[in-house]
Amino acid sequence: MKKVAIVLSGCGVYDGAEIHEAVMLLYACQKEGAEVSFFAPDIEQADVVNHLDGSSAKGGRSVLVEAARIARGNIAPLSEFDPARFDAMFFAGGFGAAKNLCTFAFDGDGCSVNPDVERAVLGMADLGKPQGFVCISPAIAARVLGGRGVRLTIGTDASTASALEKMGAKHVNCAVDDYCFDEKLNVYSTPAYMLASNTVELFSGIFKMVSAALK
Amino acid sequence: MKKVAIVLSGCGVYDGAEIHEAVMLLYACQKEGAEVSFFAPDIEQADVVNHLDGSSAKGGRSVLVEAARIARGNIAPLSEFDPARFDAMFFAGGFGAAKNLCTFAFDGDGCSVNPDVERAVLGMADLGKPQGFVCISPAIAARVLGGRGVRLTIGTDASTASALEKMGAKHVNCAVDDYCFDEKLNVYSTPAYMLASNTVELFSGIFKMVSAALK
Repeated sequence: MKKVAIVLSGCGVYDGAEIHEAVMLLYACQKEGAEVSFFAPDIEQADVVNHLDGSSAKGGRSVLVEAARIARGNIAPLSEFDPARFDAMFFAGGFGAAKNLCTFAFDGDGCSVNPDVERAVLGMADLGKPQGFVCISPAIAARVLGGRGVRLTIGTDASTASALEKMGAKHVNCAVDDYCFDEKLNVYSTPAYMLASNTVELFSGIFKMVSAALK
Repeated sequence: MKKVAIVLSGCGVYDGAEIHEAVMLLYACQKEGAEVSFFAPDIEQADVVNHLDGSSAKGGRSVLVEAARIARGNIAPLSEFDPARFDAMFFAGGFGAAKNLCTFAFDGDGCSVNPDVERAVLGMADLGKPQGFVCISPAIAARVLGGRGVRLTIGTDASTASALEKMGAKHVNCAVDDYCFDEKLNVYSTPAYMLASNTVELFSGIFKMVSAALK
């Protein structure tokens, strides 16, 4: 049974992990017979967004504690993640990936990456293990693996793609039901809600990516 | 295109809507080609549970605002729900269904139901339209439709089943990949996380139920 890590960044599209993407990642992994462990960095959220009216405020919620809602309590701090013990790792999207796991939402191509996240991504890359980035989370791969020329997709948005290329990544346009694969670095990515208009479209790309990564 | 309402009770299994069930309900409806609208009562949560350590505190979060995380902001107060405009209605499970939508988690068979929830359930029942209850949410159906002898399932847990029967419901044991159907009242129910051990099992019962209800 393959062991998979899913990395979350909170709980909710505007300040945390995109919930549908996180659940569809889990479903895709379990459909493939994998055993899933959730991880999130033990840090404060960059902000808390009211998902009803869009207003935002600073502080007060933990990325790990909120991510535990998606994980039904079965989650560990990302600092405990050991790349040697997993066969694959996936990142859900949502603004949390670009606000809490890295600062791409605030700093664009000048962004920095959370140290636990960087260690996890470098650890998997150095072991040649597959890792998959959903939606906007390829911004993390661009920052950490841009120096190695990582090939990835965030769909078709030209200005986001250009910011990723400024960090050294090679961006490839990709349809919602497909994924991009960097054979050299074993890095997968799929557009998900960068393009999807419903959960059926969402699942098509995520399932195809997870299936390929766990083969 | 069928119009479906999904009713949420917050965001997170221990104090709100069970997230996987909510997303799988959405996915099942969209797979069947339905258009989904989310609703939740505009009230305070009964409590806020830290999903990492299980501790709970009173107050401070709104059922509607937290449910908006699952709905990606596209959600309306349940008071605006009009049964005449929908072809079917589904309730996700999670402790929120038994703490916020009704008080079953605190009061057992002496529980009361939120007035907006009661109006919605009675409205659909009076129009003979299908409604589906997932996981623990059949407690709501038992309270509101127990007087009409509603037939339902919460899986196989004898003490929960007995509490539902004390409210007038007829409980039927049901497997995780199946559903219970009350033909007279057009009420569906499926055990979901009352029995499921992963999202594949979870989806099997939910999809079968949604499929049948939207036929």
